[in-house]
Amino acid sequence: MSTFGQIFRVTTYGESHCKGVGCIVDGCPPGLEITEAEIQVQLDRRRPGQSHLTTPRSESDTVTIQSGTEFNYTLGTPICMTVPNKDQKPHDYTETDFYPRPSHADWTYLQKYGVKASSGGGRSSARETIGRVAAGAVAEKYLKQLGIEIVAFVSAVGPVRLPILDDFSEQSSKDFTALIDSVTRDQVDQFITRCPIKDLSDKMTNEIEKRIVEKNSIGGVVTCVIRNCPLGLGEPCFDKLEATLAHAMLSIPATKGFEFGSGFYGTTLSGSEHNDPFIPDGKGGLKTTKNHSGGIQGGISNGENIYFNVAFKPAATISVSQATSTYDGTQGTLEARGRHDPCVLPRAVPIVEAMASLVIMDAIMIQNSRALANSRLPAIPENLKGINPLQTKIKLT
Amino acid sequence: MSTFGQIFRVTTYGESHCKGVGCIVDGCPPGLEITEAEIQVQLDRRRPGQSHLTTPRSESDTVTIQSGTEFNYTLGTPICMTVPNKDQKPHDYTETDFYPRPSHADWTYLQKYGVKASSGGGRSSARETIGRVAAGAVAEKYLKQLGIEIVAFVSAVGPVRLPILDDFSEQSSKDFTALIDSVTRDQVDQFITRCPIKDLSDKMTNEIEKRIVEKNSIGGVVTCVIRNCPLGLGEPCFDKLEATLAHAMLSIPATKGFEFGSGFYGTTLSGSEHNDPFIPDGKGGLKTTKNHSGGIQGGISNGENIYFNVAFKPAATISVSQATSTYDGTQGTLEARGRHDPCVLPRAVPIVEAMASLVIMDAIMIQNSRALANSRLPAIPENLKGINPLQTKIKLT
Amino acid sequence: MSTFGQIFRVTTYGESHCKGVGCIVDGCPPGLEITEAEIQVQLDRRRPGQSHLTTPRSESDTVTIQSGTEFNYTLGTPICMTVPNKDQKPHDYTETDFYPRPSHADWTYLQKYGVKASSGGGRSSARETIGRVAAGAVAEKYLKQLGIEIVAFVSAVGPVRLPILDDFSEQSSKDFTALIDSVTRDQVDQFITRCPIKDLSDKMTNEIEKRIVEKNSIGGVVTCVIRNCPLGLGEPCFDKLEATLAHAMLSIPATKGFEFGSGFYGTTLSGSEHNDPFIPDGKGGLKTTKNHSGGIQGGISNGENIYFNVAFKPAATISVSQATSTYDGTQGTLEARGRHDPCVLPRAVPIVEAMASLVIMDAIMIQNSRALANSRLPAIPENLKGINPLQTKIKLT
Amino acid sequence: MSTFGQIFRVTTYGESHCKGVGCIVDGCPPGLEITEAEIQVQLDRRRPGQSHLTTPRSESDTVTIQSGTEFNYTLGTPICMTVPNKDQKPHDYTETDFYPRPSHADWTYLQKYGVKASSGGGRSSARETIGRVAAGAVAEKYLKQLGIEIVAFVSAVGPVRLPILDDFSEQSSKDFTALIDSVTRDQVDQFITRCPIKDLSDKMTNEIEKRIVEKNSIGGVVTCVIRNCPLGLGEPCFDKLEATLAHAMLSIPATKGFEFGSGFYGTTLSGSEHNDPFIPDGKGGLKTTKNHSGGIQGGISNGENIYFNVAFKPAATISVSQATSTYDGTQGTLEARGRHDPCVLPRAVPIVEAMASLVIMDAIMIQNSRALANSRLPAIPENLKGINPLQTKIKLT
Repeated sequence: MSTFGQIFRVTTYGESHCKGVGCIVDGCPPGLEITEAEIQVQLDRRRPGQSHLTTPRSESDTVTIQSGTEFNYTLGTPICMTVPNKDQKPHDYTETDFYPRPSHADWTYLQKYGVKASSGGGRSSARETIGRVAAGAVAEKYLKQLGIEIVAFVSAVGPVRLPILDDFSEQSSKDFTALIDSVTRDQVDQFITRCPIKDLSDKMTNEIEKRIVEKNSIGGVVTCVIRNCPLGLGEPCFDKLEATLAHAMLSIPATKGFEFGSGFYGTTLSGSEHNDPFIPDGKGGLKTTKNHSGGIQGGISNGENIYFNVAFKPAATISVSQATSTYDGTQGTLEARGRHDPCVLPRAVPIVEAMASLVIMDAIMIQNSRALANSRLPAIPENLKGINPLQTKIKLT
Repeated sequence: MSTFGQIFRVTTYGESHCKGVGCIVDGCPPGLEITEAEIQVQLDRRRPGQSHLTTPRSESDTVTIQSGTEFNYTLGTPICMTVPNKDQKPHDYTETDFYPRPSHADWTYLQKYGVKASSGGGRSSARETIGRVAAGAVAEKYLKQLGIEIVAFVSAVGPVRLPILDDFSEQSSKDFTALIDSVTRDQVDQFITRCPIKDLSDKMTNEIEKRIVEKNSIGGVVTCVIRNCPLGLGEPCFDKLEATLAHAMLSIPATKGFEFGSGFYGTTLSGSEHNDPFIPDGKGGLKTTKNHSGGIQGGISNGENIYFNVAFKPAATISVSQATSTYDGTQGTLEARGRHDPCVLPRAVPIVEAMASLVIMDAIMIQNSRALANSRLPAIPENLKGINPLQTKIKLT
Repeated sequence: MSTFGQIFRVTTYGESHCKGVGCIVDGCPPGLEITEAEIQVQLDRRRPGQSHLTTPRSESDTVTIQSGTEFNYTLGTPICMTVPNKDQKPHDYTETDFYPRPSHADWTYLQKYGVKASSGGGRSSARETIGRVAAGAVAEKYLKQLGIEIVAFVSAVGPVRLPILDDFSEQSSKDFTALIDSVTRDQVDQFITRCPIKDLSDKMTNEIEKRIVEKNSIGGVVTCVIRNCPLGLGEPCFDKLEATLAHAMLSIPATKGFEFGSGFYGTTLSGSEHNDPFIPDGKGGLKTTKNHSGGIQGGISNGENIYFNVAFKPAATISVSQATSTYDGTQGTLEARGRHDPCVLPRAVPIVEAMASLVIMDAIMIQNSRALANSRLPAIPENLKGINPLQTKIKLT
Repeated sequence: MSTFGQIFRVTTYGESHCKGVGCIVDGCPPGLEITEAEIQVQLDRRRPGQSHLTTPRSESDTVTIQSGTEFNYTLGTPICMTVPNKDQKPHDYTETDFYPRPSHADWTYLQKYGVKASSGGGRSSARETIGRVAAGAVAEKYLKQLGIEIVAFVSAVGPVRLPILDDFSEQSSKDFTALIDSVTRDQVDQFITRCPIKDLSDKMTNEIEKRIVEKNSIGGVVTCVIRNCPLGLGEPCFDKLEATLAHAMLSIPATKGFEFGSGFYGTTLSGSEHNDPFIPDGKGGLKTTKNHSGGIQGGISNGENIYFNVAFKPAATISVSQATSTYDGTQGTLEARGRHDPCVLPRAVPIVEAMASLVIMDAIMIQNSRALANSRLPAIPENLKGINPLQTKIKLT
């Protein structure tokens, strides 16, 4: 449904042709400083019209905080954030409305809801993601206080791909590790593709430009890293951290897959190749050397970098003529309509970051409740075999 | 946490060294015929010791229905199912207990819960999945009444891979389509690898046998198809069908990735290549030709085969010596302990099927509530532009 | 938290001094005709300034539907409804701000959230209920299609009380039954007290006027009846229909108690006095004669009138001087501030109706999912003792 | 449904004639010492056959912890607790099975689920409460570590009532306050009625014995007090502490009403009479003098005693002949069957305590998540009017 999260909960609303879109963030910690300007930063990174590579539609998408803050501090009460739609009027039928767009949501929405909204795909509109990004910006502001950094970037556009996606050699792995250890949003935003590696980005630009000329579109991959994530996040057995991340990512429109750590490549390895041995971290704890685990073991964060890939299909709405069928089964040709996004990847970057923020934030809140409860209990006696001498109090994040 | 689903809800319990494992299934439709024997079928496919390729531990894992049925019919009340553990006693410490197993959950469980269970990884034990399989068998019994078929199989073991995983040529796609259109559990169970293609299965057997000799392990991929799934399942925007499937699959121990339909490969295509044109289905509705969408569009099932891949890493518990660290940071060598599973893939098949059943079952229940509510409303007037003339009553699944 | 319901879910936002208040309704059946004007009706019944008996503040509280409908039909997507606040600015401190208002939420909000909002009690503001009423109006529109009627009225103001609250004689019960069998909102709205019995209403008016002169306030009771409720609603064991009704009612500000059917009085009876014998209902089913059960048996609606009482304390904000303490423990006198509601009861009526609508609506949606699933199963064989021959298919509501 | 709570979650299972009853407790803090013997204490207080006043059926109801603990310490994983049924076999039909028992759940269960369980009322069986009591005992063990005390007692049996239920004079209030300030479970258990006041208890005993002779039953009231409850519990606006308490209490079989603090009596007072002025508590905070608020203001605990009344109807199962109807509408006489409970009140006491424990425990867990998150934020600047200078960090409970 339209609510995500257990304690830090986001409920979004809105489709293309209604009055507006937005969200309610419930369960936000009180006393957090947050301004509309801080939220606007990520909305601006998401909006169309940022470069010639994305849809030429221009939407300013200005957010207003309706409730839940005073003098720029959160009150702990629901934060409603709204963004008005420019195009608020459901339109009358045109020729193209009689065709469900191939690989779009027009047909399935009609089957599911029994109603054909004038926008066709209802909530499958990209505008739905505005509420997610606004909510993610609030979560992220909190996470920054804990030193947590979340950075996503475009790692593939069509056949132009970051080496690690296909080449798992030591050098390739080393390069990738160096990249995710340090990459910043500023570096990502230096390039209109949001790929932070210049020559790769240039090739991606060429690839997208080619698709613009073709009136076609192209898919790709977004890679995301979460640095300085506290240990102990994730709620087995069903809400393992990778499971909620996968849920979050696959809920983004146009996504086709998710993998974390060694991912699909890891399936080809033997246990001795794949396993992450432990070494002391120099701070009284342990760390791993290879991080094939992608920062998550047994469904729980281990303090290493969490990294994952999200697959995005090519945008379904294209201007190339398509031989297809009308709703009532008449075969014909769907001609170009409207302006569209030749490649959603650059704009998907802040959406992936937002969903990652929501997952981590909620996981922290749940682990908080356990850690604080545990801290109030007397220590387990020293002489208990099995559960001792290794147990300790849970660290308060 | 340990509950999955909104209306058809499963709550599981149990780890390795407690009295038993199992689950409570809440929200099951009343009047469904179900026997312990039917549930036992899938538990038997999951249990260790089925062939020389899996762990030699022998566990009979016999299920008892504690509640919720009478005379083999469900009452609509919670169905508790229990399976006793053979090895019920938390054991005393041995040398190896001082090492968190690399890439296992020992270290993160200690960080999260502050308690070192004698089993190390607590709920990360494979025995946790028994409750899922039992619950899935109940869901599946219902789905069969609607004609829904769910079949999973092993598509890769290490480097031995079904062609479609790497080769997306027309022929390869055609072969794969033919396979998932017709593959049955009987065909899958003809081979101890649970790969239904003989020569591939033979190579997988060799690969696993090699790892047994090495005292090592190997990863792989499970592919799953859901046939005859009703249209209209999935709850955007956050609970799209692919999102809840991804959540379900990534909650299975040892999983590293999920992709559906064209998946990661689809990211390399252009929109015109990737899009699924519609054609009449001959029954008053529409179907697609390529099914790159993998049976899901806009987060909602479209009636085509739903298919997806789940990546499993090599089992972390191996008998090869590993240079690693103790909990307190002393570096040393973790020697072999216990018997382990060289390849979890064959046993993962019924677990993937179970989780898929739970997702589809819950999605049906939610869509049911909407469809029946909608059926009680007067029709939308004919003259309404935009939402007419295409809308219709939702089909009752 | 700020979300209510499992399938038909309402999330509200807003406090006194923010930009606005409202809600998101998720899970509404598609194809329901609903207009802003229909929602406004109940908001107008809730707003202050309707008569000299309520607070003289005048708030128009005009609702705007932001999303989820087109051409006045619901799309099945989230319906966001917003109402702007007149008084949007958090104000600076005045003398009275240093006193937590006695029996108000100022002190507990500060303890819970660690933040002193300028409005003092944050979400405990009566404006929070606007979102509930708007959401309830949507639910109610659906319920009307099924013939369900929900009518609440004021049954007590201070010592002025409907006889049935103290006198359980046969005559009193008969009068009460006649009242709830037929009372309409029009009848209720004929009197500014919203008590539909003229002489009782006149006495209530006097009672409230007396409190206005005193700069004081007075409590009371709202009674609510739900007629033509389908059989089979309510989700044991924890979400029995009376339990979710009680939850809903006690979540309304200023409430102190809830009782249904025979209520607290019923505790004084013997089983043979209290029990409701069955008689045929003339339509193939059964009905009860006394309805001590208040329309709910075993946590499930039985088709009879559901009726219940909700206790409201006197409004905490009064203009009489009060000897009390500042936040930092200095004792002093809190002088009158602002205009206040001498009696919240008349305005509470639509809020009680709204919450009742939300409970029944959600219960229908959940039962729908079960009933439709059950309808797809083959019948239980005739020869099964115990569960036969009495079972039947669940009736589709 | 059969799960209660957001973070500390209980899922129960079982009815009369299945193999057993019990629960899974998910989200319990790790490191809590708990034994089966501690849980058994409350189960023994709940079981039938404790005195001649309750049902003569003798059930030992011995609990086994299946999972989630080792060496008597919780692991933070789901705790499954099971209690076998003595009478495990669904029985064949007898004459009385053709009559839905008046005011019982037989009729509504058949309508809701379409299945007639041999026990008639399915989960409405009193045995369903065993899982609640076991779960409550775990919660309570934690609460005791924080110094929280929960004591319930019988305050009315039919017409024999504690004075405060009808007499709100200063003396009566003073007596009641003294009682709830100090009453212990030991004091409650000195009397078989579980009313801790000897002469009142004697009268209750007489009342119940009278009903035994009559083969009848009698209702009553349980009063419960929660002492030393931390400030700040409860989650407005929908999950106010009184709302979740009401939900919990009205989910107990046979309950008809709930009131807290001044309750229904408070509706007759004026604001100046009812309001609770603040005074310093001598520990840097504030307290109230009258506690009409019943320990909850604005839906949030204020640190005072939380107290409330729960109304129980007379048990529906009686041996007196009743003129009623069969399922198919034939009127006749339902003759006595089985042994029954003439008064459920004494056995209801531990059930009320259990549900109160579950509510408080879950509320603590949720507030923990907020408080710990808030503690990690920098302080709000001193110069902010409105939200300052009063705000502070949330106290860690």
